Amino acid sequence: MDIRKFSLPEIIFGHGSIRYAGSYALQLGGKRVFLVSDQGLERSGWVDRLLTVLEEAGLETVYFDQVYSNPRDTHIEAGAALYRESQADVILALGGGSPMDTAKGIAALAGCGGRIHDYEGANRISRPLPPLILLPSTAGSGSDVSQFAIITDTARRVKMSIISRSLTPNVSIIDPDLLDTVDDHLLITSAVDALAHAVESYLSPLAHALTETQALTAIRLITRHLPRALRSRDPDDMEQLSLASTAAGISFSNASLGACHAIAHSLGGVFDTPHGEVHPVLLPHVMRFNLPACTARMADIGEVILGGRLATDEETAAAGIAWLEDFFENLGAASRLSHIVPHADDFAQICHMAAQDACLLTNPRPATAADLLAICTEAW
Amino acid sequence: MDIRKFSLPEIIFGHGSIRYAGSYALQLGGKRVFLVSDQGLERSGWVDRLLTVLEEAGLETVYFDQVYSNPRDTHIEAGAALYRESQADVILALGGGSPMDTAKGIAALAGCGGRIHDYEGANRISRPLPPLILLPSTAGSGSDVSQFAIITDTARRVKMSIISRSLTPNVSIIDPDLLDTVDDHLLITSAVDALAHAVESYLSPLAHALTETQALTAIRLITRHLPRALRSRDPDDMEQLSLASTAAGISFSNASLGACHAIAHSLGGVFDTPHGEVHPVLLPHVMRFNLPACTARMADIGEVILGGRLATDEETAAAGIAWLEDFFENLGAASRLSHIVPHADDFAQICHMAAQDACLLTNPRPATAADLLAICTEAW
Repeated sequence: MDIRKFSLPEIIFGHGSIRYAGSYALQLGGKRVFLVSDQGLERSGWVDRLLTVLEEAGLETVYFDQVYSNPRDTHIEAGAALYRESQADVILALGGGSPMDTAKGIAALAGCGGRIHDYEGANRISRPLPPLILLPSTAGSGSDVSQFAIITDTARRVKMSIISRSLTPNVSIIDPDLLDTVDDHLLITSAVDALAHAVESYLSPLAHALTETQALTAIRLITRHLPRALRSRDPDDMEQLSLASTAAGISFSNASLGACHAIAHSLGGVFDTPHGEVHPVLLPHVMRFNLPACTARMADIGEVILGGRLATDEETAAAGIAWLEDFFENLGAASRLSHIVPHADDFAQICHMAAQDACLLTNPRPATAADLLAICTEAW
Repeated sequence: MDIRKFSLPEIIFGHGSIRYAGSYALQLGGKRVFLVSDQGLERSGWVDRLLTVLEEAGLETVYFDQVYSNPRDTHIEAGAALYRESQADVILALGGGSPMDTAKGIAALAGCGGRIHDYEGANRISRPLPPLILLPSTAGSGSDVSQFAIITDTARRVKMSIISRSLTPNVSIIDPDLLDTVDDHLLITSAVDALAHAVESYLSPLAHALTETQALTAIRLITRHLPRALRSRDPDDMEQLSLASTAAGISFSNASLGACHAIAHSLGGVFDTPHGEVHPVLLPHVMRFNLPACTARMADIGEVILGGRLATDEETAAAGIAWLEDFFENLGAASRLSHIVPHADDFAQICHMAAQDACLLTNPRPATAADLLAICTEAW
C-alpha cells in the first residue's frame, strides 16, 4: 500500500473523566481557558460542572456560547475575535460536533489568521495552533479524535471540509456520563453518524489494518448496544456507544469518508439539515451504489452485522444493507429524503457541490455529480 | 470500566517512508539531530541512507552508536552526556528495540536530569523531553509507538520498565523496506515478541475496545504472514508484519503486558538473553497458568489462531495454545529454558525480581514469585 499517516489525540476515556479537564489545561500551559459550549449544555448543567472543575484548578475562563448546529464561518470569526481580545490560551470545547468544530475553527484562525475559507480541503494548515482540549457530549461526531472540521460557508451555502493534522486536538476527554442528559433523538442521530463514519471509512481506499479493525468494532458495538441503550440507559451500554464513536472517529480521521458524507455536507449547507438525520436515508443507497466496487469489503460489514456469512459475498453484503435499513426504521429514523428536506429543486446544484467535497475522493467507486443526483433521486 | 488513557505518536507508515525523516525533524524544530543507531544498521547501509536524507534536509547530525542488545544505564548516561555536550536538539533513533530504548533513555535524562533509575515504574517522568522520532528496523519491539523503555540496571542486574506518556515519541516512521536486511532469526524473534505483546495485552485487565482489536489483528497477521514472509520475503508479507508489530505496540502501550514479559525482563537482566528468544519458551506456559482466570478471552485468541471455535471456550483456548507451541517449533525456536540460559541456579532470585516488575501488575491471574518459579521450572 501507499504511505499512510495515522494520528490521534491523547485520549482520556471513562465515567467521571471530565474532572481531569483542569489538570490537562494546566499541563498544556493554560492560565485563561477559552471555553466553547452551547445553551443545551448549559441547561443540562454540564457547563457549570466544567466551570467548577476549571476554577478548582485555578484557571480563569472566557466563555463563548455562540454555537449553532452546522457552525458557520461567521460564528468562527466572532469566536476568534473574542479569543484574541480576551488573551485566552488553551481552547476547550464541551459539546457535540458543532461546539467542537467551532472550537477547531477558532483555533485555526487564532493560529494562522486569514479567513476559515483559506483552509478548506486537506493539509492547508501549516502553522501551530493554540492547545485544544475537546470533551464530546454526544457519541457520534468523532470530532474530538479527528483531523476534520466541517464549517458552513454562508456565501456559497456549502459545508467546507477542513482536514488537517493540526485540527487533531491535543487531548480528547471522553466521559460517557455526559450521555445521561442526551435525549433519544440525539442519541440515535449521533450513533447513526458514527455508524456512517465506520462504514464509509472501512470502504475507503485509504483504510488499512490500523483503521479497519476500529471501523468494524464501531459497527459491532453500535448495532448491538444502541437498541439496549435506548431501552435501559444502562451505563455500560452508554459506555460502549462512546467507545464505538471513538473507534469510528479513529477510523475516519485516518482513512476519510465517502459519498454519503459528501452529499450530507452539501445538503446541510443548503437546508441546515441535521447531519445525523441524513445518514439513515442516504447510507443504504450509497452502499448499494458502491457495492460492485467493493463487494468483499461490504460483505465484511455484513458479516459483523449479521454475525456470520451467507453463501456468497454478494448475499452477505446485500443482507447487511437490508439489515441496516430495518435497523434505521426500527429506530424511527426518516427513510426518504422527502421527509427531511423541503424540496428537491436544488438537488442538481447540491450534487455538483458534493462532487467537489474532499470526502468524495475516498469513495470506493468513482462518482460523478450525475451519479450522486441519481442516488438522491432514488432516496427522495 | 475505569478511566483509561490511550496515546499514540503520529505514525507514518509505508514503503520508502524513511525519506520523510528530515522533514519531520525540521517540523519539530530540528537543526542538529542526535542520531542513535548501531553497527548492524551501519553495515546494512541504512545509517548512510538516513544520513543522506537528513543532510538533504539541511540538518546537521551528531551520531551515537554505543548501542547494545539489552541497553544499559551506562550506555544511556554516555549518550546523554554526548547529547548535552553537542547541543543537539531532535533525537532520532534508527534500529530495533535497543537503539529506540537507548534514545528514549537519553531523551529522559536530557529532559529531566538525574539518573535513569529515578524514572523506573509508571508515570515518573513529568517534565517535557526533547522531540523524539523513531524509525524501527525490525517488526517486533513496538518501542516506536509505545510509552515503554526497558533499560538494564547494571548494579542490580535487572531490566527496569520505564513507562511514561512522555516516552511515546512525537513521530514514528515505519518503513517496511528496512526489513529487507533483517535475517531470518531476527525476523522470527521480533515477530514472536510482537505476538507476545498482542497476547499479553489482550489478556490484560486494562484492555478495552480500542486496544483489543489491535491485539487480535496482530495475532491474525503474524500467524498468517510470518511463515510466508520467511519463504518468499514478499514485500506485502513484510508490510503485514510491520503493521502487526505496530498494532501490537498500540495495544500493549495502552493496556500493558503480563507475566511473560515480567520474567523475560528479569532473565534478560541476569543472562543478557535476547528478549525475542524467551517468549516462544515461556508464552505457552504462562498462557496455561493464566487460563483459569481468563478462559473466554483466551478462547478469543484461540478463535483468531484457529479460524473458528471448538465446542467450548476451554477447548478453543487450549487448542490455540497448542497451535502456538507447534508454530514456534516449526519456526525453529528453542522450546526449553535450558536451551537459552546456562543454568537454573538464579531462578529464585530472577522470579523474586520479576514479581516486582510493573508488567506483572496487569497479568490476568495474580502471580507470586513462587508461581513464576513454578512456570520457569516447568519450562526448564
